[in-house]
Amino acid sequence: MPIPVTLTVLNTCTEAEFVELLGTVFEDAPWVARAVAGLRPFADADALHAAMMAHVRELPQSQCQDFLALHPELAGREARMGVMGTDSTVEQGSLALAALSVEEAARWEELNQAYRHKFEFPFILCVRRHTRASALHNFAKRLSNDRDTEFAAALEEVGRITRLRLASRIEGHGLANIAGRLTTHVLDTAAGRPAQGVRIQLFEAGGVERLLADMRTGRNGRTEQPLMDGEPLPAGQYELRFHLGDYFRVQGLTTDEPPFLDVVRVAFGIAEPEAHYHIPLTATPWAYSTYRGS
Amino acid sequence: MPIPVTLTVLNTCTEAEFVELLGTVFEDAPWVARAVAGLRPFADADALHAAMMAHVRELPQSQCQDFLALHPELAGREARMGVMGTDSTVEQGSLALAALSVEEAARWEELNQAYRHKFEFPFILCVRRHTRASALHNFAKRLSNDRDTEFAAALEEVGRITRLRLASRIEGHGLANIAGRLTTHVLDTAAGRPAQGVRIQLFEAGGVERLLADMRTGRNGRTEQPLMDGEPLPAGQYELRFHLGDYFRVQGLTTDEPPFLDVVRVAFGIAEPEAHYHIPLTATPWAYSTYRGS
Amino acid sequence: MPIPVTLTVLNTCTEAEFVELLGTVFEDAPWVARAVAGLRPFADADALHAAMMAHVRELPQSQCQDFLALHPELAGREARMGVMGTDSTVEQGSLALAALSVEEAARWEELNQAYRHKFEFPFILCVRRHTRASALHNFAKRLSNDRDTEFAAALEEVGRITRLRLASRIEGHGLANIAGRLTTHVLDTAAGRPAQGVRIQLFEAGGVERLLADMRTGRNGRTEQPLMDGEPLPAGQYELRFHLGDYFRVQGLTTDEPPFLDVVRVAFGIAEPEAHYHIPLTATPWAYSTYRGS
Amino acid sequence: MPIPVTLTVLNTCTEAEFVELLGTVFEDAPWVARAVAGLRPFADADALHAAMMAHVRELPQSQCQDFLALHPELAGREARMGVMGTDSTVEQGSLALAALSVEEAARWEELNQAYRHKFEFPFILCVRRHTRASALHNFAKRLSNDRDTEFAAALEEVGRITRLRLASRIEGHGLANIAGRLTTHVLDTAAGRPAQGVRIQLFEAGGVERLLADMRTGRNGRTEQPLMDGEPLPAGQYELRFHLGDYFRVQGLTTDEPPFLDVVRVAFGIAEPEAHYHIPLTATPWAYSTYRGS
Repeated sequence: MPIPVTLTVLNTCTEAEFVELLGTVFEDAPWVARAVAGLRPFADADALHAAMMAHVRELPQSQCQDFLALHPELAGREARMGVMGTDSTVEQGSLALAALSVEEAARWEELNQAYRHKFEFPFILCVRRHTRASALHNFAKRLSNDRDTEFAAALEEVGRITRLRLASRIEGHGLANIAGRLTTHVLDTAAGRPAQGVRIQLFEAGGVERLLADMRTGRNGRTEQPLMDGEPLPAGQYELRFHLGDYFRVQGLTTDEPPFLDVVRVAFGIAEPEAHYHIPLTATPWAYSTYRGS
Repeated sequence: MPIPVTLTVLNTCTEAEFVELLGTVFEDAPWVARAVAGLRPFADADALHAAMMAHVRELPQSQCQDFLALHPELAGREARMGVMGTDSTVEQGSLALAALSVEEAARWEELNQAYRHKFEFPFILCVRRHTRASALHNFAKRLSNDRDTEFAAALEEVGRITRLRLASRIEGHGLANIAGRLTTHVLDTAAGRPAQGVRIQLFEAGGVERLLADMRTGRNGRTEQPLMDGEPLPAGQYELRFHLGDYFRVQGLTTDEPPFLDVVRVAFGIAEPEAHYHIPLTATPWAYSTYRGS
Repeated sequence: MPIPVTLTVLNTCTEAEFVELLGTVFEDAPWVARAVAGLRPFADADALHAAMMAHVRELPQSQCQDFLALHPELAGREARMGVMGTDSTVEQGSLALAALSVEEAARWEELNQAYRHKFEFPFILCVRRHTRASALHNFAKRLSNDRDTEFAAALEEVGRITRLRLASRIEGHGLANIAGRLTTHVLDTAAGRPAQGVRIQLFEAGGVERLLADMRTGRNGRTEQPLMDGEPLPAGQYELRFHLGDYFRVQGLTTDEPPFLDVVRVAFGIAEPEAHYHIPLTATPWAYSTYRGS
Repeated sequence: MPIPVTLTVLNTCTEAEFVELLGTVFEDAPWVARAVAGLRPFADADALHAAMMAHVRELPQSQCQDFLALHPELAGREARMGVMGTDSTVEQGSLALAALSVEEAARWEELNQAYRHKFEFPFILCVRRHTRASALHNFAKRLSNDRDTEFAAALEEVGRITRLRLASRIEGHGLANIAGRLTTHVLDTAAGRPAQGVRIQLFEAGGVERLLADMRTGRNGRTEQPLMDGEPLPAGQYELRFHLGDYFRVQGLTTDEPPFLDVVRVAFGIAEPEAHYHIPLTATPWAYSTYRGS
């Protein structure tokens, strides 16, 4: 991928340079960048992205369909053969689709075939907004769409994919609505103060369990960094594990063996990848509460 | 095991019958029953048990040690050879000690040897009050006791074992403090009423996961039967799984995919086998609280 | 009021005795009792009440209206003159309508006149199901009903009034749905056990504040008696005051002056007089939760 | 009071100007400012205050006592006669000590006399850190101190008073630990989002009730401004009133009349005037929780 440049550079470079810099934002379609080069300067990255999407949406339907048809399948032949574009390779990598079991691969293959047979273009999904389970769920659901609905859904996903790609091409892009955030906060309600030094683990769940973060709360009961941020939060199932037993043992409040509360598990789902999920825990050695906060 | 008889029968039968009925309450020690037969009638089962324990405790130390030495090891040779008494076989069965992996069996063997070497009698534990993990934890901990402390601990366990055995021999025994209880209660705080029809699963955790109960809440938000009762609650780690997502989907309150809350897991430890653990859940589709109630 | 008798007595006495015993259940209408005497025996008090109400509902409309018109006004002339029936006097007494301020009396008078003018019978309300504020609210609201709706509403109230009167006439009446219940439960979630010895006060609120109960929790964290029961819970506003500061001071957990939490006030409304309101409190010195439980 | 100036001005002006500017920071004691003028420049306002306090603390005891003796009494003769310094007048004004009832005035007078008799200087308290009830409580408690303890306590209060006065004299003073903060946050846990538009009132309680703030939550469930900040939080009793019933009525979730929850009252005490009290509320129409958060 090209090194990010500022919007000013994009607004002032030659058309050839502009296409060079943004030509791979739309999969196999440098002509999208070329088509909007003449509309420069853009007030901001949002205006640039809107112009690119408008160009695609205004294509005659058959041409638009050809454009969609050039996208690689998810977990498809291109991925297996290693002939996808760099962006797609990185994006699909986030789902570890290459590491599918034989059964899972067969399921994806089956969906890919059914989808291509029904719609005549491949299933397009902004995979950075999904866990593997969520991607699969979405795939099966969209397969039941009628053609018009699905055509619109595919373009919607193209918009999401290219928005994220554009963000990676522009230094200080300022694009809204491209990242979510997951934060937490632990309150010791036995002592009436933030719980400091509580170990918190974040796991992806809902299939293979995968450790995503392992942090400790600071003096204010929060982790120094959000548990996830700077990216869309992949829709899917997660679990937070709060190591409360260790914390209260240090306070001298937990003496039972085993303690009544030890590792508190908060399983939750993310359905809005660009939202802020704040999931605090208020706890004593004998009670806890959690909620979607803000 | 003999068929349970009433206390009246025990108080009025011949000495031979009394020993026949209660001779196996103390492992390989029908002489305990014989020694207290002359003290009849007993006002209640508690008095009978107290008399039997008093007889054992008043033995000269060497004789008491011989008595302890006759107990079978946990997961030991007798268990493997199938030559334990019926009570011990049933009791040890609750820990599934026969199903140990090679590594686990080696660990038990190692502890058994170390213990027998140090104390010259086998490790005695009222296993019905423990999960396997808790039994192992207890074993390692007691191994570090000095001789007097451990002698007392072993007799304490003999008291617990024989109390439970006595309860199984006497119809309507009335013995206090021989069973715990685990209950729950689900409140739908979005609607301000008990949550009816919530599936609740109880698992033993802390090692191999084992399903212990699978129930639904009734109109009052409670399960028809306690999740565990009538026995000591084996000390150890457990997990309750409340299928909240299904419940709120039926109410039309959960529409996200995946839902924010789906299966709520409440992991907890039991340290007091004869206590009542009430673990309610108050929940909305976006928040929940739990605590040790009563 | 007559001394309560059993249903058997009512089923077997003479018609004259029957009318003597139940003649004042319907205000100024001994003919209701007389009309159903011939239908005896009744299987239960519910059947008896249903028969009486059926007789009233089946009256020709003008006769029914005459019957309604014989009821005394609330806070009306009969009350002020002391010429109401015993039941009405006792019932209206629960609202302390005699103790109205000049302004309040004027408001009641105004509503009474407007109501009588519109409907040609007095406003009938089962006052034992209402606080004074709730009665007034109900009065203003029903004044806006159309005639048919209000006729039905008045008969509904007659049903409620007579049901409660019948309950007071029959020993062991077994009538369903004539009483509510207010209970509480205090859990000390810092210690993981019921909070014993917490003083709890119940006040009627929403106008003049009136102490209704002053109790302490026992070992199980509950009051020995419900805070209210055996009667309909008057619809209205209430406040529970939990003296938590005193409790936690005794535990040595509250040392700040003033404590963060001292007297916790839970203000709540009752809208269903025959329901069970369970309002537990889970608390530490720094946090508390309450909810409508069950 | 003089117009605030920067530390640079204080560090570079003449000694006469310095004394002019800071001469009233210590009550009737311009010599304190004069004594430290020669120690300039001060690195920051903290260093300046420390130098002034050090000078006072190092005075011979009799001289220090004379200095203390020059302070006006709380609710004393000087206050009544209107002959106190400007700072003291403003500070005592915050307690509305001028508006005492006859009984209260007598109680203050009694304490003032007892105190002066015992310690030979007037009771000194940084009144901006107290409500009237808390000031009175503190007065009675300190009266029981021995002389040395109380001498130290009085100097401690002088430090607090002068620190706040210094802050008002220096533009951008940067003094730590001179203000507390009270904030809240309302979460609608039925909907899983911040509760917007909830009216929140803050009252001083524990004596005469006084409305201190009346705000509404914004989109993020918080008030635009803290409920109190920029000053020490006067130690004392408070009550937050959250108008939940109105909020949930707008959501269509509260239909009962009266609603189960209407105005939720959270009574709490402040014992640390310079701390941050965060008191969130998580609520549904049927349940709520609050805690000291952060």
